[in-house]
Amino acid sequence: MKAYSELNQYMAGISDILNTMNILNWDARTQMPTGGNVTRGFQLATLSGLAQEKLVADQLKTLLEKAEVETASLPEDGIERRNLKALREASELFRRTPERLTRDLAGLRAEAQHCWGQARAKNDFAMFAPLLERMVGLQRELAEVIGYTEHPYDALVGIYEPDMTHTKLQNLFRQLKAKCLPLLERIRAAEPPREEFLGREFPLGQQRAFGLEVAQAFGYDLERGRLDTSLHPFEISFTRDDVRITTRYQPNFLTMSLFGTLHETGHALYEQGVAPELSRTALTSDLPGMYAVGGASFGTHESQSRLWENLVGRSKIFWRHWYPRLVETFKTQLEDVDAETFHRAVNRVSPSLIRVEADEITYNLHIMLRVELEAALIDGSLSVSDLPAAWNAKMQQYLSLTPPDDARGVLQDIHWSAGYFGSFPTYTIGNVMASQFFAAARAQVPNLEASLEAGDYAPLRGWLTEHIYRHGRRFRPQELLQRATGHGLDAQPYLEYLETKFTGLYQLEG
Amino acid sequence: MKAYSELNQYMAGISDILNTMNILNWDARTQMPTGGNVTRGFQLATLSGLAQEKLVADQLKTLLEKAEVETASLPEDGIERRNLKALREASELFRRTPERLTRDLAGLRAEAQHCWGQARAKNDFAMFAPLLERMVGLQRELAEVIGYTEHPYDALVGIYEPDMTHTKLQNLFRQLKAKCLPLLERIRAAEPPREEFLGREFPLGQQRAFGLEVAQAFGYDLERGRLDTSLHPFEISFTRDDVRITTRYQPNFLTMSLFGTLHETGHALYEQGVAPELSRTALTSDLPGMYAVGGASFGTHESQSRLWENLVGRSKIFWRHWYPRLVETFKTQLEDVDAETFHRAVNRVSPSLIRVEADEITYNLHIMLRVELEAALIDGSLSVSDLPAAWNAKMQQYLSLTPPDDARGVLQDIHWSAGYFGSFPTYTIGNVMASQFFAAARAQVPNLEASLEAGDYAPLRGWLTEHIYRHGRRFRPQELLQRATGHGLDAQPYLEYLETKFTGLYQLEG
Repeated sequence: MKAYSELNQYMAGISDILNTMNILNWDARTQMPTGGNVTRGFQLATLSGLAQEKLVADQLKTLLEKAEVETASLPEDGIERRNLKALREASELFRRTPERLTRDLAGLRAEAQHCWGQARAKNDFAMFAPLLERMVGLQRELAEVIGYTEHPYDALVGIYEPDMTHTKLQNLFRQLKAKCLPLLERIRAAEPPREEFLGREFPLGQQRAFGLEVAQAFGYDLERGRLDTSLHPFEISFTRDDVRITTRYQPNFLTMSLFGTLHETGHALYEQGVAPELSRTALTSDLPGMYAVGGASFGTHESQSRLWENLVGRSKIFWRHWYPRLVETFKTQLEDVDAETFHRAVNRVSPSLIRVEADEITYNLHIMLRVELEAALIDGSLSVSDLPAAWNAKMQQYLSLTPPDDARGVLQDIHWSAGYFGSFPTYTIGNVMASQFFAAARAQVPNLEASLEAGDYAPLRGWLTEHIYRHGRRFRPQELLQRATGHGLDAQPYLEYLETKFTGLYQLEG
Repeated sequence: MKAYSELNQYMAGISDILNTMNILNWDARTQMPTGGNVTRGFQLATLSGLAQEKLVADQLKTLLEKAEVETASLPEDGIERRNLKALREASELFRRTPERLTRDLAGLRAEAQHCWGQARAKNDFAMFAPLLERMVGLQRELAEVIGYTEHPYDALVGIYEPDMTHTKLQNLFRQLKAKCLPLLERIRAAEPPREEFLGREFPLGQQRAFGLEVAQAFGYDLERGRLDTSLHPFEISFTRDDVRITTRYQPNFLTMSLFGTLHETGHALYEQGVAPELSRTALTSDLPGMYAVGGASFGTHESQSRLWENLVGRSKIFWRHWYPRLVETFKTQLEDVDAETFHRAVNRVSPSLIRVEADEITYNLHIMLRVELEAALIDGSLSVSDLPAAWNAKMQQYLSLTPPDDARGVLQDIHWSAGYFGSFPTYTIGNVMASQFFAAARAQVPNLEASLEAGDYAPLRGWLTEHIYRHGRRFRPQELLQRATGHGLDAQPYLEYLETKFTGLYQLEG
């Protein structure tokens, strides 16, 4: 296996570059003084160029061919052949992507994000529209380069979620709507839980300490990680040995920092749990996306942030264990609140205009709206000029709300200006997968509920590591799901979870 | 100038890599969780390899030849030709350095630093001796590759201080000893100043705030910088637009954090003051050292840290301005201390075993000792086995002290284990240059003393920027000195400074 081992060395160099880019991005978002902005852009562009040069180099092509011969008798789904496959696919994609398209996309991304920020501040969609139109055009070109059989959107969504298609998403959304819309109706008719105490003054240092205590209890290893503050929370890794998370704090908004921390911890557990032997291989690199990441797909990654944030962190048994500790931390703020009241408050359902503030039921409706609109933009059935009206119509249809302005409507997310067409579905896919994985763990791990009730997360984390984390990007998401749960993507466990949880919380008639 | 401009683009890519390596090192020393250590090493090695590949590439060779023709009629000391010269020299050095030597040095550096740490902890020189012997051997080889005319040490010291030689250093040291040894005798016979109040409890947050306030008054721009904590203080830059410093704090050791901050601020002012058009060129890159840095040499850089720390920060007029503010910050700690007493305390001379704790007079004696020993190791007149005895003999000769063990003697510094033979002299050269620059500024800037007395550092910083900072590495250190002060390296201003300052402070007979 001389060529394979040489190729692994070559790939390790590419991985080092991608991990370094992550460090530069982490620093830019948490530490860098504002003046460093322009030169940081140069540094990132140079590194990205170096990684890309290595991916299209003839040396790689030759090595790949030799290594494929060497490994031909190994199992198709083993680490070696999957490693080579990922490298070949990325190399071929970069070789057939016109340099002009790459350059235009990078340029437009910077320009459009800047313009979007200004347009949102001024509540002026018309200002952003011409750039969005150019972006839609480039995304269509990109879809053609990537290739698809049914719908151009399939090519784009596949960047983030391999094998996902527009048709599959429509089916999934149909099932979700059939459950969520009537459930939402019933919730709206019920008595809303108390929640005014969540807006009391919670000192930031104690918010941080409590969040970090839970994160460590979940298994987040601070010898290989750290928690910082940033404007938008995120998780980022520079191999499994250095996996960092951020959150944000407001004194009158405890749940934002707390569930933000648990969400990012879920992502971090995934990255810290990747098998060491996958470090610096193509199986911890999103090569087409030029991003060092150990998770199988955006949706799979999101399934872990949602699992730890929602299925664990917003559950009744979680708060039965942790609420006394929370009250110890915030005595005066919570003296008149019991665990059940607190649990109901952090699960309150309340349709709102803003996706990132949405609860578990309405969140998916925000996603469906965006996916339906972006797919229509890509296939040409919706024009950019008609987008604001289409947005508002769907908001009315799904959430019975009408945005008072475009800033709180069609301009709220950065994704389209950044060229991330096709990434929105992965948030909902993550929710669906989370319930599948959790149901499988419950079925397979003896006494899982009892350990969770005792605040012992090792059994759950152990199952997730064994069936998901350690594999990195070795399996495609559907393959990983099938192996771990015995099923492909299946909305049923998620729908049952929502039904049980919210009929209980809101004491709805069964 | 087509080739020149293409070459500048090429060089910008190398600079981006070197700046990125600085970011990785900064992160490793201030932020990184311990687990990230091994993969961080891989990332740095990969980036260093990429920069080196670019420096020896045939593409660069061709570009250099064309660009040299294009610029042949431009001034020899202009930015363009100096930029090309730096690139050519580095490229040729890397081309003639055997790969084996580079590899052996990198490997031995890691091994020897690790061993040195253990040997120092166990106070066991014999444990370190075999690795030091191998290091001396590799340093001799390196000296041969670099080349020299008189003494092999010239080649090594030239890495850090171009054009400096063993002979020039011997002359310089002779002058310094002739002044410092008798001055030290007289000081030892005088009454030592009070200083017990420096060991009182100074809360760390206030130490930090005061140091940063002075740093900003000096002109350190926090839009392009930040102050962090690290085990060993340092300054590091990722272009002039992001220049970071660190310090360290102990509650009972105010002067360590304060003068540490001012020292690193001096380095930072140099980097922040480099002309923007030199960013990402060879004139802000130490290419042979694979390090992004804007200063002309180690000695020149050190001249600025010493100038701001000692000539400004330990002066009487500095404390006349700042002492009331310090007392405001530390009311209870300093209520029984006046400005003059404080000023005398922070300038107290007291021979000690440890270089990094030394005062302004004895510091240079520590350096001379090291330089004399390392030059003798390199030319073979001293063997590694005789080194501890030679160290102790010189300590007795210069400072009348005998180390109680090798940990506080020959094993105290990391430099030899890290392979930095030839870097020690730059600390003393920095002291000497600092006085030359300061004397020239005083002669050329009207009312400089008055502005310093008023806490206005813009006139001094303006002169330093004009004559030193903005030029980056365009001029060789001696050339820079000559242009700014009218002289080459000259110990006279420094000797006068020491004489005047310490006869005054200790009220010695003239």
